Amino acid sequence: MPEQLFSYQQLFDFAKNIFQKIGCSPEHADTAAKTLLSADLRGIDSHGIARLSGYVRLWEVKRVNATPDIKIIHETPSTAVVDGDSGLGLVVAPFAMQVAIEKAKQVGTGWVSVQNSNHFGIAGYHAMMALEHDMIGMAMTNASPLVAPTFSIDKMLGTNPICVAAPAGNEPAFVADLATTTAANGKLEILQRKNADTPLGWVQDAEGNPSTDANILKKGGALLPLGGDREHGSHKGYALGAIVDILSALLSGANYAPWVPPFPAYVPMPAQQPGKGIGHFLGAMRIDAFRPAEDFKKDMDHWIQGFRKCRTIPGEEKVLVPGDPEREFEEERSKNGIPLLDAVVEDLNNLSAKLSVSWP
Amino acid sequence: MPEQLFSYQQLFDFAKNIFQKIGCSPEHADTAAKTLLSADLRGIDSHGIARLSGYVRLWEVKRVNATPDIKIIHETPSTAVVDGDSGLGLVVAPFAMQVAIEKAKQVGTGWVSVQNSNHFGIAGYHAMMALEHDMIGMAMTNASPLVAPTFSIDKMLGTNPICVAAPAGNEPAFVADLATTTAANGKLEILQRKNADTPLGWVQDAEGNPSTDANILKKGGALLPLGGDREHGSHKGYALGAIVDILSALLSGANYAPWVPPFPAYVPMPAQQPGKGIGHFLGAMRIDAFRPAEDFKKDMDHWIQGFRKCRTIPGEEKVLVPGDPEREFEEERSKNGIPLLDAVVEDLNNLSAKLSVSWP
Repeated sequence: MPEQLFSYQQLFDFAKNIFQKIGCSPEHADTAAKTLLSADLRGIDSHGIARLSGYVRLWEVKRVNATPDIKIIHETPSTAVVDGDSGLGLVVAPFAMQVAIEKAKQVGTGWVSVQNSNHFGIAGYHAMMALEHDMIGMAMTNASPLVAPTFSIDKMLGTNPICVAAPAGNEPAFVADLATTTAANGKLEILQRKNADTPLGWVQDAEGNPSTDANILKKGGALLPLGGDREHGSHKGYALGAIVDILSALLSGANYAPWVPPFPAYVPMPAQQPGKGIGHFLGAMRIDAFRPAEDFKKDMDHWIQGFRKCRTIPGEEKVLVPGDPEREFEEERSKNGIPLLDAVVEDLNNLSAKLSVSWP
Repeated sequence: MPEQLFSYQQLFDFAKNIFQKIGCSPEHADTAAKTLLSADLRGIDSHGIARLSGYVRLWEVKRVNATPDIKIIHETPSTAVVDGDSGLGLVVAPFAMQVAIEKAKQVGTGWVSVQNSNHFGIAGYHAMMALEHDMIGMAMTNASPLVAPTFSIDKMLGTNPICVAAPAGNEPAFVADLATTTAANGKLEILQRKNADTPLGWVQDAEGNPSTDANILKKGGALLPLGGDREHGSHKGYALGAIVDILSALLSGANYAPWVPPFPAYVPMPAQQPGKGIGHFLGAMRIDAFRPAEDFKKDMDHWIQGFRKCRTIPGEEKVLVPGDPEREFEEERSKNGIPLLDAVVEDLNNLSAKLSVSWP
């Protein structure tokens, strides 16, 4: 597919200028652009600058507040609930993660559930904030309902990702960042552009039958939980997505299950709203609240090296450690630039014209 | 398959007497029997009394200490590391979970990583200890290496289960208890007894090729992470199993990855032992450290009822909420008794004779 290369700095400046143009403070615009672009750097193109115009449309319909008063509304020594005041999740989640980190400094761990937020980009960005403090970081969020639980036709959960990041010593950090579905929505979009089918186990049709149609979501179909079907453990993927929903939304007072607000601004809001906005859950655990960080990191190096040395199945060259593919993208794209599809460039050009913000 | 029915009390008394006979204190024997039997009650037959003779064999080879000095070796207000002193995991894990609950009472949450333990039965028993305190409970453990990471021939992880239990109001609690593999080892044993094949995606052979042989573990094969293969998201199941290993063992100083001690006493210990025993991770979060427990439980009821009302795919009668199948087993078996396969009864009769403990 035709694409063009841009430097990180070009795209960061554009995104930051757009966020300032809609009214974000320079600090918030900076954080939002950094969070958003971390997805492009790490190769998760579906969650990066390709979504910028989507965030702006949410602001246009007054579902995103550009000047939120983000605050703690309840807390204990190791916990807090943060009200995002309808701000960009790209700004609200880093605020909440910082609260978790401060609490971990004080009492060993910090756990923050967030209400009244919006989509927060990639979970990995937030969880990885813990690494420089020698902490394990966790981040989860609920999301618009696209996923049918095992045996269900109805879409009840989002792709509800979980990220856990743990520091190592000489080896790069362990970063597991995963949607709780067989495949994330972004993978379907890639197949749509190629006019290709999905493998069995990714989606079902509007009647709940197995399907391989990459466009099935537009026809009333659903994504399937990790596992695909009952025989292959989809009840486990469903349970994991449910856990994310409970920690992110039922613990904070956000909307949950099929009542989570949709990301596309043109999709009507659910008639029923049991909570406020969408929910996140952020956690930080100080390693030395358990054992000396140096001992842990030495063991992590040993652990990682053990996995890298595994013999491989026929046709594969190496066993990966969670975080390897994204880190390789980040190294390559930091040096050589970020490729954007022509369709994304056109969309950003239109955004540039609409808001009178110059495009590189 | 031929089986016989026993009452909970009959099996509890027998297990407790066996544990006392090998030297456990009455209190420890009581806890161990209760933890063990909770698996039989909840329909997870592979982890219940069928394993009793296996625990005794571990004691015979001095890998289980019947009179352990279980203690906290490091702590902060929200964390602790517990040394199980080679005790039964059936006793060590409830001790650690109680520590987590006490910390949650004080500072909102409690997180305990455990070293130097043994197999702890079902994760669900420990996580559910939190429910009566209006807390969310979590339990995980690492286990003997039977699982090959994505693209690997080598077995590097156990079936490493995760349980999260959350209280509801009028509805029964949400209890998600899952191995991070497509299918747990117990499911293979059922197929072996029926002389049946597994579905594709459960196991691979000794060369890393897809297999449907339910006996493949005895021939050098491996269980596969949840997802089955890369195309169906096995890198996610692998990442989840890895997270369990890190929190249970690298955070506590237990053995990890392929160096976790095997459950069968006749299997030699790994030559290399980077830590002590096997590791667990237990957590408790006070609901009202986030929001009023009544509000949370009302939302949980609403959440659960929403899932129960889902329309079903062709051929299925209802959508289940995590914990439903196990709770239905518990209700039925508490009333009508626990069925044991003849082979299990024979094994327990032999144990009865060997230790001179009367069998019902």
